[in-house]
Amino acid sequence: MVRYAGRLTKPTARLTVRSVSGHIKTSQIMPANTLGEIFRLTTFGESHGPAVGGVIDGCPAGIPVSSDEVQKMLARRRPGQSEVTTPRAEDDEVEFLSGILNGMTTGTPIGFLIRNKDARPTDYDDLKNTYRPSHADFTWEAKFGIRDHRGGGRSSARETACRVVGGSIALQALNQTGVSIKAWVSSVGDISIPENSLLDYDQIEKNIVRCAHEATAQKMISLIETVKSEGDSLGGIISCSITGVEAGLGEPVFDKLHAVLGKAMLSINAVKGFEVGSGFSAAGMRGSSHNDSFVIKDGKITTSTNHSGGIQGGISNGNEIFFKAAFKPVSTIQKMQNTVNREGNPVLLESKGRHDPCVVPRAVPIVESMAAMVIFDFLLRNRSSKF
Amino acid sequence: MVRYAGRLTKPTARLTVRSVSGHIKTSQIMPANTLGEIFRLTTFGESHGPAVGGVIDGCPAGIPVSSDEVQKMLARRRPGQSEVTTPRAEDDEVEFLSGILNGMTTGTPIGFLIRNKDARPTDYDDLKNTYRPSHADFTWEAKFGIRDHRGGGRSSARETACRVVGGSIALQALNQTGVSIKAWVSSVGDISIPENSLLDYDQIEKNIVRCAHEATAQKMISLIETVKSEGDSLGGIISCSITGVEAGLGEPVFDKLHAVLGKAMLSINAVKGFEVGSGFSAAGMRGSSHNDSFVIKDGKITTSTNHSGGIQGGISNGNEIFFKAAFKPVSTIQKMQNTVNREGNPVLLESKGRHDPCVVPRAVPIVESMAAMVIFDFLLRNRSSKF
Amino acid sequence: MVRYAGRLTKPTARLTVRSVSGHIKTSQIMPANTLGEIFRLTTFGESHGPAVGGVIDGCPAGIPVSSDEVQKMLARRRPGQSEVTTPRAEDDEVEFLSGILNGMTTGTPIGFLIRNKDARPTDYDDLKNTYRPSHADFTWEAKFGIRDHRGGGRSSARETACRVVGGSIALQALNQTGVSIKAWVSSVGDISIPENSLLDYDQIEKNIVRCAHEATAQKMISLIETVKSEGDSLGGIISCSITGVEAGLGEPVFDKLHAVLGKAMLSINAVKGFEVGSGFSAAGMRGSSHNDSFVIKDGKITTSTNHSGGIQGGISNGNEIFFKAAFKPVSTIQKMQNTVNREGNPVLLESKGRHDPCVVPRAVPIVESMAAMVIFDFLLRNRSSKF
Amino acid sequence: MVRYAGRLTKPTARLTVRSVSGHIKTSQIMPANTLGEIFRLTTFGESHGPAVGGVIDGCPAGIPVSSDEVQKMLARRRPGQSEVTTPRAEDDEVEFLSGILNGMTTGTPIGFLIRNKDARPTDYDDLKNTYRPSHADFTWEAKFGIRDHRGGGRSSARETACRVVGGSIALQALNQTGVSIKAWVSSVGDISIPENSLLDYDQIEKNIVRCAHEATAQKMISLIETVKSEGDSLGGIISCSITGVEAGLGEPVFDKLHAVLGKAMLSINAVKGFEVGSGFSAAGMRGSSHNDSFVIKDGKITTSTNHSGGIQGGISNGNEIFFKAAFKPVSTIQKMQNTVNREGNPVLLESKGRHDPCVVPRAVPIVESMAAMVIFDFLLRNRSSKF
Repeated sequence: MVRYAGRLTKPTARLTVRSVSGHIKTSQIMPANTLGEIFRLTTFGESHGPAVGGVIDGCPAGIPVSSDEVQKMLARRRPGQSEVTTPRAEDDEVEFLSGILNGMTTGTPIGFLIRNKDARPTDYDDLKNTYRPSHADFTWEAKFGIRDHRGGGRSSARETACRVVGGSIALQALNQTGVSIKAWVSSVGDISIPENSLLDYDQIEKNIVRCAHEATAQKMISLIETVKSEGDSLGGIISCSITGVEAGLGEPVFDKLHAVLGKAMLSINAVKGFEVGSGFSAAGMRGSSHNDSFVIKDGKITTSTNHSGGIQGGISNGNEIFFKAAFKPVSTIQKMQNTVNREGNPVLLESKGRHDPCVVPRAVPIVESMAAMVIFDFLLRNRSSKF
Repeated sequence: MVRYAGRLTKPTARLTVRSVSGHIKTSQIMPANTLGEIFRLTTFGESHGPAVGGVIDGCPAGIPVSSDEVQKMLARRRPGQSEVTTPRAEDDEVEFLSGILNGMTTGTPIGFLIRNKDARPTDYDDLKNTYRPSHADFTWEAKFGIRDHRGGGRSSARETACRVVGGSIALQALNQTGVSIKAWVSSVGDISIPENSLLDYDQIEKNIVRCAHEATAQKMISLIETVKSEGDSLGGIISCSITGVEAGLGEPVFDKLHAVLGKAMLSINAVKGFEVGSGFSAAGMRGSSHNDSFVIKDGKITTSTNHSGGIQGGISNGNEIFFKAAFKPVSTIQKMQNTVNREGNPVLLESKGRHDPCVVPRAVPIVESMAAMVIFDFLLRNRSSKF
Repeated sequence: MVRYAGRLTKPTARLTVRSVSGHIKTSQIMPANTLGEIFRLTTFGESHGPAVGGVIDGCPAGIPVSSDEVQKMLARRRPGQSEVTTPRAEDDEVEFLSGILNGMTTGTPIGFLIRNKDARPTDYDDLKNTYRPSHADFTWEAKFGIRDHRGGGRSSARETACRVVGGSIALQALNQTGVSIKAWVSSVGDISIPENSLLDYDQIEKNIVRCAHEATAQKMISLIETVKSEGDSLGGIISCSITGVEAGLGEPVFDKLHAVLGKAMLSINAVKGFEVGSGFSAAGMRGSSHNDSFVIKDGKITTSTNHSGGIQGGISNGNEIFFKAAFKPVSTIQKMQNTVNREGNPVLLESKGRHDPCVVPRAVPIVESMAAMVIFDFLLRNRSSKF
Repeated sequence: MVRYAGRLTKPTARLTVRSVSGHIKTSQIMPANTLGEIFRLTTFGESHGPAVGGVIDGCPAGIPVSSDEVQKMLARRRPGQSEVTTPRAEDDEVEFLSGILNGMTTGTPIGFLIRNKDARPTDYDDLKNTYRPSHADFTWEAKFGIRDHRGGGRSSARETACRVVGGSIALQALNQTGVSIKAWVSSVGDISIPENSLLDYDQIEKNIVRCAHEATAQKMISLIETVKSEGDSLGGIISCSITGVEAGLGEPVFDKLHAVLGKAMLSINAVKGFEVGSGFSAAGMRGSSHNDSFVIKDGKITTSTNHSGGIQGGISNGNEIFFKAAFKPVSTIQKMQNTVNREGNPVLLESKGRHDPCVVPRAVPIVESMAAMVIFDFLLRNRSSKF
């Protein structure tokens, strides 16, 4: 068998239109809308249904929780927050229904919901029978037979609002233990923060692209504005740094700390790649320069370099945990595109939905939220068995 | 807060030697040695204990299983198979204890074990108190208090032999459904298969580096031999292609197909990065060129390009699934290294253990095995609920 | 060591008042508010908080769901429905938030909530510091440190309303496959349906105690009225019959069908015992009279007797599944009782809360709901892996 | 719809012989051979295959484990230990393969196996096509299509040897925390320890029926000998008392302590009923006499009676936990029985396999083992999240 290296451009067709409708009759499902082992978030809700929401089970009793903090984190993810995001305006006001009494978690499940206020289901009527390119329309229909076509239904990034609610609560708990999580945009399209630049975390929330390097931020904003005016979209990269994590978090073999972090990031809409520590660049290195020597510093064991990204053998070593996630350009663009409809006929598609020219600035709190839930869950898992 | 962009080189020291010994007293654990939701592999065993082994639960009844096929796949992972791998020779003979009757799975759990025959525990006596750089010695001890120092104990890649047993059984089932899984080495150190080269899958098992491109294979072998003679090690990249997967596999939201694949790959020893389809290069692209248009070909719905890597919205679309995993250089090298011991004193370490100069050729069947178990599990999950 | 047989009357004191407050400081939790493996109900909500609700994940796409049917089943559980139940009147109106489109499940999680309308939190102010006998006040406080004292918080039977929502959806799916589930009250206090009486399922909803035997129903009602006038409460037994279940449901070893049914019933508030088929009477029988001989009837394999209760080796055999659950008298009574408060001082308690003199009539739909979710989950588990 | 109350004697035939063979072609499975949430035992193995065994995952590091203790507990379950058990003689010698180093758990999975030494597969050749009454032959074949007919395959009680290995390790851990678990035979056939008898735990291991009341033990032994000489079998009841459990174990709602205990007991071969505390007798009581008043005794909060069986609202209250499990008579008897074969033809069956006339004496350590694993798992779950 012979084929070309590199990214595939030749599709391997297999699905007949007929087999798709066959799927409709025998559609099957075992969805997985729960994250975590002990601290567990289960989410529900469609983009243009009555509400999105969730249940956090396994959250310990006795954590002070500020709903203002949750609301602030939601505001960073909110559509319509700046000129580089979608103009769709949503309040994203969370209502807590249980599990918190007088600002303190009680150990019972925390139920919450966010009503969908700016739902415009009829905006999507003409998409009912059309498979938008690189969206989940075709695959969800192949899986479930039924598809809520209004704004992507459950495949919409609107679902990530619920992740931010869970993430904010995990983060409030972690902050009390000395853990700090910072994410920022490090690339937008072909513009990246130059290697060895001085990062300034205080800048992140001061520019609308959430870049930790002011000069680069301005270039990113210009690029996004250009691309937006062309009706196109852009990908990007988010970097994340976690400090204050004790040594010993992560589980052997299948639940390595970076493996679970990787899964969490790859589950965010549009993420196509993940790397921890030295990442892909490690492939080009030799052991003698990649190995992180243990040293004593200020009376503590640490390492002289951190190619490991704070994780060795899948378990945290106490150093900074460092990873990157790559986002593809969002699939919704304001350009004419070729596609097919449910009947298998070619159609021309012109998207009219409101959308983000570049999703990464709004994805920063989502990355932080997922990281917070993963770390807090491992912290609880690690404390599960003293002997 | 100000810091430098790019890979971290400045460690953030936090762990005191004292706190490490504190950990020893209050060590806690909730390990996770199980992979999968329906088809579930649980592994056990230390590198230099009596045996490694596992239990496969949830394997459907009625699958013809050839133990010869299992043994062949184990031989591809086996140490000592060529001059570019470790000289440690192991038979890796698997004994099945249950769940298979007359070459057919019975639906009951498949217990199996592989005795450790070439165990030389005393080879490791001088490592009892030393933390080898970039190994899991320090972190496992921080986590568990106790550490089986002999050959890395359970953090040793020897555990992956059990993954190959599970993977081979999953693969035998998948092959009957038309699914094919091919992995190969696409980079070793700074040598990669050139973009747009013709790949020849038949070459993979014909050269000792398992490269799908003969000319590149020879360069890789030369490089490994040079580095081996220097007592050093090399990283690399494995690419994997999965064809014949029906549309509809993968679960919404947290258990997206590529997220679970990513976790599986990141759980393999030495993996630092994962990307699917366009991967990190997607970050630099625009939506108009990244979107995969749906087209009709031979009466079937497919896409004209495959930047999605066969997965859209976390669910397979019937096209080829394509991903890459980046491996760091193995940490065991034949050079003097600075490190510290359990007491927190600096020591000079000269490794004498047998090791692989480059692990990727032997990791090819492990990547295939993990992919097979993930795909087969999703196939079973997808069939769980017809209505 | 010497002690008396039979029910224990001698308490073994161990918890000091001090250790209780110690618990408050170090309270820990990993709650489990999820039922099922594939069809999974997660519930949340406290008795006198804003709402109770839940998420059903893993419900297959394509099930027609009538919310009227859900509402009807809730009405059978509803307080205030007759003179033998608590006068507390609640609408129990369910709002579905996701997962159902045009009366059909979509395969995405079904979020729902029931607002608490008749909440009277101040009714419970004087119970803030008092441990009511045989309630969960003391144990929840020992576990969580924090306790929502208003109406029992989450330990209130109000939570079971959410089980009825999940159960009704499972039942609607099961009914389409030919499965029928009938539960009825077979004992109240010392009044039981006489052995070998003719049961009439049509009577169940025609009398307010939900007894399948009219003459017995009248005696039960009289007894409840007497006990109610005395401010006391009564226990009882619910019997349940499930027909139309295919052979092969249930999982080997730990997840036997009757074991999971038993856990489900024992998780209902006030249940103290469970038996399947011959149950406790089997202990007094001999194998020769207990064994169910296989016979052919109407060309089908079945058994001549059914001491097995339709389950053999933990797996359904196609016969009627039959079990009983024993309920203790509810702990809330209108009598003076001795107890202690949080400070460890003896206090006299006179309950003023509204309550049920006998809970079993209202528990009938809860038993049916739990049975429906268990059977439907096993049906989905059984279909998970064809080969 | 009209039917008779009491135990069902009229079978509801549904399975055709044809549908059984239909099952064979489309057999499906998702078995569940794992017990526990944190401390998790997965077992494998068939009665007459090479071995039974298991993996204990999630066992904390640092527990001293004596394999002699494990072996002693296995000896109490061992066949052939006395004249009231089956004459089948098995050594049941356990080999530990991992997870224990120098008599101490290391936190990694504990793999173990017990070789089947007295396997006589040909003893069962004539049962290949016959469904033994009240055995799992018919149901397992309906489920899996394939059936290992040799001695019941995996449905054999031989599997419980693995539970005893797990239970013994859990018990060794629990004993160090002050928890004590005692089970004994309280009924055999129609002979029970009289109410209010003085129990003497020291007697349990001194008589071959494991009864805590010497005079009753002698009657039980006589009865078993009579029934054995008739080729028949007997049911019985095992009682269990657990002391030293801290208040706060058990999880709200679905994972109530007694619900999980109940499931564990009902998963033991031949168990048909379970009750905790007052159990079925609670159904006949009034709240005023059933409620356990809280009192202060020796400066501690406890209750004056213990109808709750040490569990309130699903959570332990620090008192003695007390439950009973009812066992049916074993199905294998030395009498001629009517049954049918795989082809649906009536056949006369005369069992020649070795068997127990009454299984309860050997089941005592199994009950203790299951209880130990449940309690230890809840203890670990309860410690999972301090805040």
